[in-house]
Formats: sequence, structure tokens, C-alpha cells
Amino acid sequence: MNPVSRTRGFVGSLIHCIPNPQDGSPTLEILQQAVIVLNPEGTHIDILIKQYAPVTLEGLWEHPELDLTILGPGEFMIPGFVDTHNHAAQWAMRGLGQNLHILDWLEQITFPQEAKFSDPVYAERVYSLCVDGFLRQGITTASYYGSVHGEATKILANLCLAKGQRVFVGKCNMTRNSPDSYRDASVEESLRVTRECIDHIRSIDPKGELVKHILTPRFAISCTAETLDGLGKIAKENPDLPIQTHFNEAEQEIHATKELFPEFGGSEADLYEHFGLLGPRTILAHCCHMTEYEMKRIKELECGVAHCPVSNMTVGGGFMAAPVREFMRRGIKVGLGTDSGGGFSSSILDAMRQAMIASHAREKLSEGKDKGLSIAEVFYLATLGGAEVCGLGEKIGNFEMGKEFDALVIGTVNNPGIMTPVQDDDDLRTAFDKWVMTGDDRNIKKVFVRGRLVKSEGTLGAARVEFPN
Amino acid sequence: MNPVSRTRGFVGSLIHCIPNPQDGSPTLEILQQAVIVLNPEGTHIDILIKQYAPVTLEGLWEHPELDLTILGPGEFMIPGFVDTHNHAAQWAMRGLGQNLHILDWLEQITFPQEAKFSDPVYAERVYSLCVDGFLRQGITTASYYGSVHGEATKILANLCLAKGQRVFVGKCNMTRNSPDSYRDASVEESLRVTRECIDHIRSIDPKGELVKHILTPRFAISCTAETLDGLGKIAKENPDLPIQTHFNEAEQEIHATKELFPEFGGSEADLYEHFGLLGPRTILAHCCHMTEYEMKRIKELECGVAHCPVSNMTVGGGFMAAPVREFMRRGIKVGLGTDSGGGFSSSILDAMRQAMIASHAREKLSEGKDKGLSIAEVFYLATLGGAEVCGLGEKIGNFEMGKEFDALVIGTVNNPGIMTPVQDDDDLRTAFDKWVMTGDDRNIKKVFVRGRLVKSEGTLGAARVEFPN
Repeated sequence: MNPVSRTRGFVGSLIHCIPNPQDGSPTLEILQQAVIVLNPEGTHIDILIKQYAPVTLEGLWEHPELDLTILGPGEFMIPGFVDTHNHAAQWAMRGLGQNLHILDWLEQITFPQEAKFSDPVYAERVYSLCVDGFLRQGITTASYYGSVHGEATKILANLCLAKGQRVFVGKCNMTRNSPDSYRDASVEESLRVTRECIDHIRSIDPKGELVKHILTPRFAISCTAETLDGLGKIAKENPDLPIQTHFNEAEQEIHATKELFPEFGGSEADLYEHFGLLGPRTILAHCCHMTEYEMKRIKELECGVAHCPVSNMTVGGGFMAAPVREFMRRGIKVGLGTDSGGGFSSSILDAMRQAMIASHAREKLSEGKDKGLSIAEVFYLATLGGAEVCGLGEKIGNFEMGKEFDALVIGTVNNPGIMTPVQDDDDLRTAFDKWVMTGDDRNIKKVFVRGRLVKSEGTLGAARVEFPN
Repeated sequence: MNPVSRTRGFVGSLIHCIPNPQDGSPTLEILQQAVIVLNPEGTHIDILIKQYAPVTLEGLWEHPELDLTILGPGEFMIPGFVDTHNHAAQWAMRGLGQNLHILDWLEQITFPQEAKFSDPVYAERVYSLCVDGFLRQGITTASYYGSVHGEATKILANLCLAKGQRVFVGKCNMTRNSPDSYRDASVEESLRVTRECIDHIRSIDPKGELVKHILTPRFAISCTAETLDGLGKIAKENPDLPIQTHFNEAEQEIHATKELFPEFGGSEADLYEHFGLLGPRTILAHCCHMTEYEMKRIKELECGVAHCPVSNMTVGGGFMAAPVREFMRRGIKVGLGTDSGGGFSSSILDAMRQAMIASHAREKLSEGKDKGLSIAEVFYLATLGGAEVCGLGEKIGNFEMGKEFDALVIGTVNNPGIMTPVQDDDDLRTAFDKWVMTGDDRNIKKVFVRGRLVKSEGTLGAARVEFPN
């Protein structure tokens, strides 16, 4: 006999970012006595009580159809993390090729690794580890670059749907400047396989509730004008599909792009716009070196930026990361990317810390004009900021009423094996700050995506609420 | 009945740094078929076979008094990590006060935290977590700053000896510029308590085999001339004791020091040398802002540098870390410090990664002159380099014959919960690189200090060797 399905609710501390009512700037909201009740289907937030009184809880208690979870001591709930730039096909090479310049790193390390995904058995095995690994780290939404292979890309999409991760999955388009053994056979083949992947993903998730294809011209160096043009046409025919590419990542890359497309005078904004690839649904990874003109254009075109400080400061050749403070000042959407592969870490927490560090470098370079980012701000980038970059700001990113329930339960105490030094007398904000700077996946006790529990630590964490009489 | 004590040996892969026979520069040595046999006391390396042949193993096998451990698949052994700069009294505040300038961070966050160690019960509890935490992360040697309190400092020394960590433990000398509630009552009291701590530590570890007191004038801002002078005299009377202080850490600190000691014209080298505190047994933390004169002086005086990139790029005010490549070029000793407290991370692996990142920034600032550090180089800093900074280069830091056995067994595969993406076909160097960039304490299966097993993961790792017939 199946248990009767009951509506789920959560009682405890919530921490998330909301737009400041005055100026829309991201603001950390810390709610110590909150209640969330999901809709009957268990996917969306139906009720959000920001501060309960005893009478509220008694009211809830009278609803036997409600399955209430109360968070334990030292626990709080945050929105799931959004990873706006992630190479699933580079999962197994993290940490290699440090110090290489971007094009050498691609040729020596990356292309040989990604080429292995021509084997569907290999793809199934490594992508499975990859999706499990990111879910474990609380990445409830990821925008994945796959490899060039159609079959492997479909396998990745199937795995994400089965395991319950909210994702964009892109077959990489690459029609030049990589070894024969690792590129599309022709422009036609590149576009045909792309359409095939789009169709496949629509067939497994017709409403695109969790999984969507994302158009993924790797970057202009990998794509002829015909390829970019063909993808621009697919983008026009499919206004529901997001688009992603690499953008002004490194000096070596910018120089090579200019040589290949001299007609755009070195402006990658003009280049990708020309082919119909820039707009509100475009995610531009990196954006390290930006002219005034390009910042203006991507703002006008409403593109989002995937800020990837870990890879920008290790591989790629040079030490430079996006001018995030300047983007925020201009109202350009920004989120965080692990850039896992190029980034050695698969953790958004590491990306948050490196975003702080990169912003200190930017503060120094700008002689104090671009102030370093705070913990609250990097947390915003990892949650609501990332959701906005993915065009999902209305669906996820914080605990607003009506949004889908993507959430993490964080435990900061009573867990052998965690390094977070939370003390009994720490307030919630202190525990949160300590966790952001010192925690890891061992603190992430539960992970929910669209209401589905996709990771649980079993004995620790939530328990049935017992109200005092 | 006690089991008969048997001599221990280890068979498997070793990775460590040795000085290049040509020019003395640090070189990674990877030994895939090595044997280490300890002396009968189990503390030192008695035999090192760099590449065994079957006949060698058969020879060992004929010695029934030998207790051999063979490393498993994906396992290798490295020297224990050396943390040359660590504030034990800041264990519980890691992650707080990011973005604050150094003197504000001390006043608002650090001094109130360290003041809690006036309570011996608190000291016992938090220092115990601290020592366990660092041992778990493979830090076999640490140079600790304690708090200002004599009693708590003795407790820290006792705990380190009991738990088996090789340490320098220093009572902090602070006679001005901190709250009344958190400084030495007088210069006399400061020096008296220091002598008391020295005596205590000599009484618990008469030969200083594991635990030594380290003279610890916090920095010149905290110490009057009389205090520094008194400590210089103690240093002269006790030529076996190491010395540590903060040195040219941040602009705000340098400026305040110059105001307090105008007679040295802004040279911290001249200042500390004047009071007899610089020499081969001195560990200078940070050294971010160094003039040509100061580099020359610390080289001549044979001081070592504790490079602390994590804290230098987050707290302190500004974004700057030591010019490590320049130090190495000049033959100045350099090691790594977590600077745990100011550094948010308690992991030397994080310090190694940040040292790479900081070196990329230095490469950029020097317009390519100071090349970024490689994985092999940051590994050197974390092991042999750190040992040399602590004046322990003859005793620990690598697997040379006759050295004490401080070692970690690293596991890279077959361990649920680790993120290191080591694949079946990876060679040992690839597995090592991946671990350095993506691993954490979960990969550290066993930790030995002076031959004593101080951490063991139980079921995983070493097993009795079975030789094929």
C-alpha cells in the first residue's frame, strides 16, 4: 500500500537574497522563524511565512495532511546553487594543465579528454559521476557544455533528467581548429546533430521543466561563419532555447578571434551579434577583458555573464577575471560558473571565495573604485544572480512564493568530518559566513530540485516536528 | 601479552621533493616502486630503496621481524605538510571579517576571539579541535601562535605532545595597542610568562623532539621597545629556540609600524634586527611588501619566509602576496602558512592552490619576469621548503635516509566521498596533480608523525603485503 501523499512543509531558518525594495540591489534576507509549504504536487512554494508566531504553528499543526520537517540545531536552508558555466565533458580532467595558455591547454589537455566521449559507455560512466558530483555539492541548476558528440550529449540529458538536476545541456559546435578526430565532420553535420539533440531533449522533457538544450557554439575560433550563421538561424526558429559561448576570456583567445574575423575589428560583441547569437537568453562565459563599447552592447542586448574566477586565475594565460563590480553597477546580469574543467574545483563555494579574491584584485587595479565583493554579494551571484543569467529568475534563485522549490539544507554543527568552526554562541549570520568561507559538500545535508529530494544524508538533519503542548 | 614489536616497512609509490643535484633547486621525485624501512624505534627512516627489484622484495620477505605495509591501488605516500604560520587561537573564527583592513580586523574580530582563551576550559576544548583538525589535514608540523595567556599556551603544548603533532608553540607577546582585557599586564609580566612557558615545554618534552616554545612578539605594533628588547635577550640566552613575528604584511600595518618606530625609517628588517630577533631561526610571516634592501637583509640574516596567500588575498586590506619567485631566485627560504584565522582555510592544499594563483598575479605585475609557480613548486613549499623555514630541513621535509618519518598516505580512488577525478588509466603524476588541485582531507588516509600513526581511516589503505610466489 502506498502511503497517502501529504503536502510538505519546512520550519526553520532560511537565508536567501531578495532585491532591495528601494533600488533593486541584492540584499541578504535572514529569516530565523520561517515556514515554507509546498503546493500539493510538491514542486512549488505555495506558502511562505517569514516569521511565525506560536499561533501560526498551531494552525499548521491542525492540518494532518501536512508533512512538516523542522530543521535541527545549526541547520538552515538556502536556495540551490546555480552553475552558469560548466563543461561536463571535462569532469575527469580537473586540475590538469595549470599554467598553460588557453589555446595550448585546449590542444594538449582538453580536446584529447573530450574526444573520449565518442564512446557512449565512457560517456554514461563519467557523466553519471559528474551529475552525482555536482548534485552532491548543491548545484541544483547547471548550464553544461557537452562534448561535440550527439550521442553523448543525449546521454548527459537523460542522466540529468533521471537524477533530477535542472540543466541546460549543449552539444558543442566545433567545425575548425581542433584535431580531425575531435570536431564536427562538416557544418551541415554540426547543425544536423544539434537539431537531433534539440529534438531528443524535447522528447524526454516536453515542457522543458528540468532539461533544455542550449545552443553551444564553443567559441568563434572553433566555428566558421557558416556554423555561427546556421546556429543563429536555429536560435531564431527556437526562441525558447538558451545560447552559450565563451566571450573575451583571455588575450590569446581574443587575438586569435580577431585574426579569424577581422571584419569585426576585435569586437566579439559585434561578431556574435552579427550571427544572431546575442540576446536575453545568451550566457557569455568569462568576459574578462571588456571595452566600454562591449559592456554597453551586452547591457543593451540583455546578455548574462558567467563569472568564472577559478579558471580565470589558473589556466588561460594571465591573471584576470571579469569586472563584476562594474557589471553590477551597470545592471548587467552576472552569475557564477565553476567552469569545471578549466576551473580545478567542482564547488560553487570555491567559486564564491575566488570571486571575492578576484574582486580584491579588481579593487586594487581600479585604485579603490571597484570595491571588493562581500559574502552576501557572492552568495547572490551563486543563487539569484545565476538564475537571472539563465533566464530563470522568475522560477528559481530564492524562496519567493510561487517559485519552484530548489533548496539545500545546510548543517553546521554536530557533524563529524566538517571543518566549519561554528560555536554554540554564534548567531545565524556568523554561522552562515563561516560556512560560506570554510564549508564544503559535507555540510550540505539535503538537496531538493523542483521539490524532489536528490541528496540526503540520512541520519542527520530534518526530523518530524514535535510541538510543545 | 603484548605483541612482539616488529620493525615497520612500507612498499609502494613515494612522491617528494629533493634538491636538484646540479643547482639545488627543488625537484619532484616520483618513485613508483619504493621501499622504506624504519629504525627499530620506529621513528626514523633507516632504509630507502628507490626502485625495488623482485629480489629486493624477496630479501625483505625473509625477515619475519619486519611488519610490511603495501600501499593499495591509487595510493601514494608524501611527506607530511609543514604549516609555517598558524594562529591556533583563531581556529574558531575562520571565515569572519573578510574584507576588513588588518588593524580593524584585529580589533573587531580577532582580539575578542583570542581573549576567550583566558578560560582554560575553553582553551582545552577549542585547541583540542584545532590540533585534531590540522592533523586530519596532514599538517604534521605547525608553527603556532597561541594567545597572550600562559596557561592556555601550556595547554596547547600539552595537547600537541599528547596527540603527536610536531610543533612550535608561542605565547604571544603583546604589551600595547590592544584592549586592556587582552594584553600582557606589563613588560615584566610578558617576559615572565614567556619564560614560564619555555620552562613548561622543556619539562614535558626535554629534548624538544616534538614540541618547542617559539618566541612570538606578535608584531612591533603590539610590542614596546622594552618588550622587543627583553625578547631579544631571551633569544640570545636560548639559542635553541625559534622566533616568529609578522613582517611587512599590509600597507596599514607598515604605516603604523613606521609611526611607532620612526628611528628605523620604515625598515622592519632594521627594527627587528636591532632587537636581536632576526637570524636563521626566525620565521617571518607574510613579507608581502619588500624593498630591495629588506630582501637583501633577510637573505643575509638567513631568515625564513612564511608565505600565506589565502589571508593575503582576503583580509588585510589590499591584494598582495609575497614575491615568492623572487625569494626563490635569491635563495631566501620560503614555506607555506595557512595563517589559519586570517586565512579562511585550514588546509595546506588550499594554501598551495592560492600560492599558484598569487604567483600568477605576480607574473602579471612583473610583466612576465616572475613566472607563476608550478604544482611541483607549491608542493615543495608545503613540505621541504616549510621544513627549511622552520630550521628542520635536516630532520623532515622529504624521505631522505636518516630523517624522521613524517608521512601521509594519500588515496585517490575507491573512496566514496572524494572529489578527485582519478581515472584507471591515469599515471601516478597525473593522479598527483589532480589530487593537489582537487583533493581534500578525505584523501588523506593515514598520517604519521615521527613514526607514530596519528590519523587512520581504518578500512581503506594499507594492507599486509602478499608476495606472489
